[in-house]
Amino acid sequence: MFDFKVIAESETSQARAGLLQTTHGVVETPVFMPVGTRGSVKSVSPEELLAAGARIILGNTYHLYLRPGCEVIRRFAGLHRFMHWDGPILTDSGGFQVFSLAKLAKVSDEGVTFQSHLDGSSHLLTPSKVIDIQNCLGADIMMCLDDCIQYPASREDTMAALEMTIKWADECKQAWQETRKADNALFGIVQGGMFKDLREQSAEALMKIDFPGYAVGGLSVGEPADLMLEMADCTLPNLPKTKPRYIMGVGTLGNIIELVALGADMFDCVLPTRNARNGQMFTQHGTVNISNAQYKEDPEPLEPGCECYTCRHYSRAYLRHLYMARELLSYRLNTIHNIHHFIRFMKQVRKAIVADEFESFRKNFYRKLEN
Amino acid sequence: MFDFKVIAESETSQARAGLLQTTHGVVETPVFMPVGTRGSVKSVSPEELLAAGARIILGNTYHLYLRPGCEVIRRFAGLHRFMHWDGPILTDSGGFQVFSLAKLAKVSDEGVTFQSHLDGSSHLLTPSKVIDIQNCLGADIMMCLDDCIQYPASREDTMAALEMTIKWADECKQAWQETRKADNALFGIVQGGMFKDLREQSAEALMKIDFPGYAVGGLSVGEPADLMLEMADCTLPNLPKTKPRYIMGVGTLGNIIELVALGADMFDCVLPTRNARNGQMFTQHGTVNISNAQYKEDPEPLEPGCECYTCRHYSRAYLRHLYMARELLSYRLNTIHNIHHFIRFMKQVRKAIVADEFESFRKNFYRKLEN
Repeated sequence: MFDFKVIAESETSQARAGLLQTTHGVVETPVFMPVGTRGSVKSVSPEELLAAGARIILGNTYHLYLRPGCEVIRRFAGLHRFMHWDGPILTDSGGFQVFSLAKLAKVSDEGVTFQSHLDGSSHLLTPSKVIDIQNCLGADIMMCLDDCIQYPASREDTMAALEMTIKWADECKQAWQETRKADNALFGIVQGGMFKDLREQSAEALMKIDFPGYAVGGLSVGEPADLMLEMADCTLPNLPKTKPRYIMGVGTLGNIIELVALGADMFDCVLPTRNARNGQMFTQHGTVNISNAQYKEDPEPLEPGCECYTCRHYSRAYLRHLYMARELLSYRLNTIHNIHHFIRFMKQVRKAIVADEFESFRKNFYRKLEN
Repeated sequence: MFDFKVIAESETSQARAGLLQTTHGVVETPVFMPVGTRGSVKSVSPEELLAAGARIILGNTYHLYLRPGCEVIRRFAGLHRFMHWDGPILTDSGGFQVFSLAKLAKVSDEGVTFQSHLDGSSHLLTPSKVIDIQNCLGADIMMCLDDCIQYPASREDTMAALEMTIKWADECKQAWQETRKADNALFGIVQGGMFKDLREQSAEALMKIDFPGYAVGGLSVGEPADLMLEMADCTLPNLPKTKPRYIMGVGTLGNIIELVALGADMFDCVLPTRNARNGQMFTQHGTVNISNAQYKEDPEPLEPGCECYTCRHYSRAYLRHLYMARELLSYRLNTIHNIHHFIRFMKQVRKAIVADEFESFRKNFYRKLEN
């Protein structure tokens, strides 16, 4: 089953708390979804994800389609059993990765052809094919194929991509309805670049097709944060209040809290996991570069009071040592903390919304960062 | 406290089962000790080591002395708290690493000077200094500084190194007695290259100095397995029956079982951990190269019936996928299985000795490998 309920709304903003029901469990929103690109959230186990508070993760269709391939994952009736994760999984459509990773991507009415970044082999992704792949992955939430553009892009290019995205969304919806086996959901993706009217036009067209949820794509592609928020602001209020709203690929906690204020429910980003592997740790008091010499003999946990596995058992000095020595355990311990930090933050956000204290929480968040 | 008791002896060989009592717990012997070179058994957590059955691990003095350095680890009163491992730790003296890793190693009566492989800085390790460092690491079992030689080596070179090793062993014993804080142990290291009479001479000289335990060094340095066993055979029977005997850096389970038959109690080797990171997995039915295409869609666990975390939750297809994609989780899952495999094997060996079924166990081991 798939269902979404808003259970509390902030009186001073568009922020809302919700419950997302999927076949693999209920997810409290607003939610941050760690990214498990290739069937693994890099360096951490499913048990560690759960312990860090993760309840839904993301898988990348483009990567998994190329390797290990659908024929492998089909043997396991989907990604859940393949990777030993029993919670909900959201998969993207591959559209963004074809645009950002593949070679010689070429868009036509039919779909997008590209060459694999792994071996140069040629592939064609069509709307019905991305639904097939996501069905094979057993996604709880699937995304429509979208036509992604560079930033900045001309109005003409943006409009052409937008029209293609709407055409494909329609075809994805049809393919999804025809092939639906389990009670999963398909989300449409709002595009429209940095043009307000095109964003509005995109949202309207998708709502006519009618999806169980809506995503906002094409943000966090290099534009200033203010512009990103402006685009979100002219998109989110137009989407149905009763449906989940997912902002793709954003981002910092500062951006997330502003997007929650605008009514967003779901987030994913490689920021906590990728930065962890580069030794950049997020704490309530700002970022910590664990390689910094000041931590060489520091016996304190990374963030005193933090209840993650890393902070309960290891010191800054040890984390620095592991990082400097490029020990494999370093990436894991850092990742556990950063995921825990993002998810704890989302829990606090949700709690504040439910208690109708979102505004004071938001102010307090910025105040802490300044100290 | 440090103590060793033989609790069972095989009637058909020199194999024995024992209990090694340390301040950080009791260890059943024969035992395999995973190698945690730089304060971490690569890719696995202390909890995972415990779950895989590890009860004692090894740390490398050379690496830890250079990075993070004693001044850091002293802040944690030793390696145990620094790395969050509460079980016993054995540290080597650094002698072998100076010989194998450092640049421009030069031996004198005083000790060995060398240049760090990390930054080229110059260092001097003396017998009293390696005891100081191992005290700082809080080792439960320390090793004497030894003068290591190439294989093959002339009789003249072997004798010179042997004499130096004995001189240093004497000085290590003195330094250990003077600086001993906790109830730890110091092991002498038998050298003598591939010369039987020099091995015997080395063992005798060390026994005169009298150590709580004895190691056999200079094996598994490139010589054929038969020669290695021959050298062990002319060394082990000469060592006191009441003291633990540790064979350094060996090796395959086939070699380990033969050395157990000759009376060895303790083993360490990077084989299970290093090979795991290269995708070579050990099972009861032989080795498995997980990258092999035959596992691409294989839904079976790596070793059906194995109770390790990896085999309980993941398929060969998933392990292959992670390995091919060079996902960080790959190294961990592979390492957990290989450590579990080595330690389960040692438990089986011990059980066979206690039941006085060692010979049939040994025969069965080879029979399984042939199938």
